Amino acid sequence: MDRVYKKIELVGVSTVSYEDAVKTAVEKAAATLHGLSWFEVTEQRGRISEGKIAEYQAVIKVAFRID
Amino acid sequence: MDRVYKKIELVGVSTVSYEDAVKTAVEKAAATLHGLSWFEVTEQRGRISEGKIAEYQAVIKVAFRID
Amino acid sequence: MDRVYKKIELVGVSTVSYEDAVKTAVEKAAATLHGLSWFEVTEQRGRISEGKIAEYQAVIKVAFRID
Amino acid sequence: MDRVYKKIELVGVSTVSYEDAVKTAVEKAAATLHGLSWFEVTEQRGRISEGKIAEYQAVIKVAFRID
Amino acid sequence: MDRVYKKIELVGVSTVSYEDAVKTAVEKAAATLHGLSWFEVTEQRGRISEGKIAEYQAVIKVAFRID
Amino acid sequence: MDRVYKKIELVGVSTVSYEDAVKTAVEKAAATLHGLSWFEVTEQRGRISEGKIAEYQAVIKVAFRID
Amino acid sequence: MDRVYKKIELVGVSTVSYEDAVKTAVEKAAATLHGLSWFEVTEQRGRISEGKIAEYQAVIKVAFRID
Amino acid sequence: MDRVYKKIELVGVSTVSYEDAVKTAVEKAAATLHGLSWFEVTEQRGRISEGKIAEYQAVIKVAFRID
Amino acid sequence: MDRVYKKIELVGVSTVSYEDAVKTAVEKAAATLHGLSWFEVTEQRGRISEGKIAEYQAVIKVAFRID
Amino acid sequence: MDRVYKKIELVGVSTVSYEDAVKTAVEKAAATLHGLSWFEVTEQRGRISEGKIAEYQAVIKVAFRID
Amino acid sequence: MDRVYKKIELVGVSTVSYEDAVKTAVEKAAATLHGLSWFEVTEQRGRISEGKIAEYQAVIKVAFRID
Amino acid sequence: MDRVYKKIELVGVSTVSYEDAVKTAVEKAAATLHGLSWFEVTEQRGRISEGKIAEYQAVIKVAFRID
Repeated sequence: MDRVYKKIELVGVSTVSYEDAVKTAVEKAAATLHGLSWFEVTEQRGRISEGKIAEYQAVIKVAFRID
Repeated sequence: MDRVYKKIELVGVSTVSYEDAVKTAVEKAAATLHGLSWFEVTEQRGRISEGKIAEYQAVIKVAFRID
Repeated sequence: MDRVYKKIELVGVSTVSYEDAVKTAVEKAAATLHGLSWFEVTEQRGRISEGKIAEYQAVIKVAFRID
Repeated sequence: MDRVYKKIELVGVSTVSYEDAVKTAVEKAAATLHGLSWFEVTEQRGRISEGKIAEYQAVIKVAFRID
Repeated sequence: MDRVYKKIELVGVSTVSYEDAVKTAVEKAAATLHGLSWFEVTEQRGRISEGKIAEYQAVIKVAFRID
Repeated sequence: MDRVYKKIELVGVSTVSYEDAVKTAVEKAAATLHGLSWFEVTEQRGRISEGKIAEYQAVIKVAFRID
Repeated sequence: MDRVYKKIELVGVSTVSYEDAVKTAVEKAAATLHGLSWFEVTEQRGRISEGKIAEYQAVIKVAFRID
Repeated sequence: MDRVYKKIELVGVSTVSYEDAVKTAVEKAAATLHGLSWFEVTEQRGRISEGKIAEYQAVIKVAFRID
Repeated sequence: MDRVYKKIELVGVSTVSYEDAVKTAVEKAAATLHGLSWFEVTEQRGRISEGKIAEYQAVIKVAFRID
Repeated sequence: MDRVYKKIELVGVSTVSYEDAVKTAVEKAAATLHGLSWFEVTEQRGRISEGKIAEYQAVIKVAFRID
Repeated sequence: MDRVYKKIELVGVSTVSYEDAVKTAVEKAAATLHGLSWFEVTEQRGRISEGKIAEYQAVIKVAFRID
Repeated sequence: MDRVYKKIELVGVSTVSYEDAVKTAVEKAAATLHGLSWFEVTEQRGRISEGKIAEYQAVIKVAFRID
């Protein structure tokens, strides 16, 4: 029953929303890792250009099981 | 003029967005408590299934007035 | 190459979403300040009225370059 | 000798001082709970009206023994 | 699929170990609440008497599903 | 209904008490700013002189509405 | 011009107020240490007895110059 | 004498104790990495099933030297 | 009724468990100090040697009454 | 004897060192503000370009007296 | 425009200064990773030997773009 | 193999740099204590005089073994 997960830290960037920024990061992780299990949002930032929000940046930790 | 509020901690879960996860928790609280006044988001997490975001989890504190 | 940025702290309020609350604060800042460069979300709160979310409040720090 | 305490989070509001705000919250808790044992102040805030402090708000955790 | 959990904060006290202090708190919670799902240890303290550890105190948050 | 507040950080110093230190800072802010709405105490410090408390220092954030 | 300060951590207990709890701790420190310079309040707690505040506890760090 | 360590974040899960959860994670790391040097426990959580602690979860950072 | 406690910070090291690491530190403090009253665990770390946990390190604050 | 300080948050950027980044920010502040009194470093970051540190970024709070 | 960065945590050790400790870590990372973009200093520690600073240890997070 | 370290908190002040401020504090500690082992920087502040940095202040914890 004992098992181990690894957490990695990613920054997803999106022009649309924080949900989309998280999705971008999670799907990038899923492209190379199996067994993704949960994520935690640790920071929300963004870039401003010409007085408008140019991008949403979500810093997340993604956990996956290590076999 | 003196008064007292109580804060409780809830975790709302939604398949749609963080706003929806907060809404789910607030409306559940409103079903049994009167005088809900404000909330504070303290954590944002989520579950991943088959490489995609399966649910958004918002941890919130909800405050309501005690008579 | 040396330069200096100033960060100010704003609270944006919106009836729609946290992205909209951030946008409201950033655009208000852009009305009087030039060189806005990035922002950081430091708190997410909200007001409840009659058991429903009445407004989303996003506390952000906005950074702009000082000439 | 093993025992369990529960902590609840309250916000006391007073027009006088922080000590009075804490007292307001503790006495409200004491009206319905027995065995109150200690408290911890976690936040101190206040409301301003017409340029003056209108009220002191003390956020506290109150612990009481569960039988 | 949307659902809501509530978290309560407890302090378990044991003369044996931190695991036992957590167990004491979880089992007390289980006596009156259904659907306990997870816990988080937020503080570890203890009392000293005559130069020896007299008790272990574990502050935990316990989450359970609200129907 | 959308609106924006700005928070500024002040340190009030008083020889009397923390409530007086906060009051000193809030009233100084009120002398030049309109629409002060709330404050948050973020630090409490003090100076000692000849073994006695010489002054109370309250670090606060003061929020006011931007039109 | 180089110099060094040491900080020690004390808990002052008073039946009157937090200012008095800090004063109790500072004056105790002053009885054996010279060159006390400043203090920082790091926690505010209290004991409750029979539903009323029985004592105010202020955790402070006190700094003094080392010759 | 200059050197570099890398820290990775793991979650060890055990049905026995926190020490065993940490051991599970450290030994999993040791199976593929050389030069493990120290660890830091950053979170302690657990799962509850039928009113009893079903597993202990220790979140740790493990550091190892990079050649 | 007014009184003062001092807190000191210790790191206990044990090859057995965190409870034993805390015990090692508390008993060392008790060898030279009277009136030890409580402790708080602030960090849990450890050393790894040849892929196994070589020691548990518990950072604690120990409080004792000053007469 | 009562007085008030204001703290502003700046980010100094330097290609040389953190001390130089702080100096850049403090001197920029001194160009338009009188009575600068102290600063606090709250974050240290940097930009990397082609595998080398391209700039040091020091986030500081600068305090000055308000008359 | 959407993109993803990964952050890794490193500890650079130098006998000279914190800037040198950061440089040591960044250059080690650059030896195997492309697209290093920024870093954040999260801890500053050091080792003492025979009463003198023997080494500076900088814990940093380094971010690089994932293609 | 079991052993105990004590940590004390010092503030080193230097007109030159943070490394020098840390060195000042460590060497002061070494003048009266044996077995100094490591230090942790917990705060970096400074004093400004006539618009220039007048001193660097490093708050550190210094650990030494207790026999």
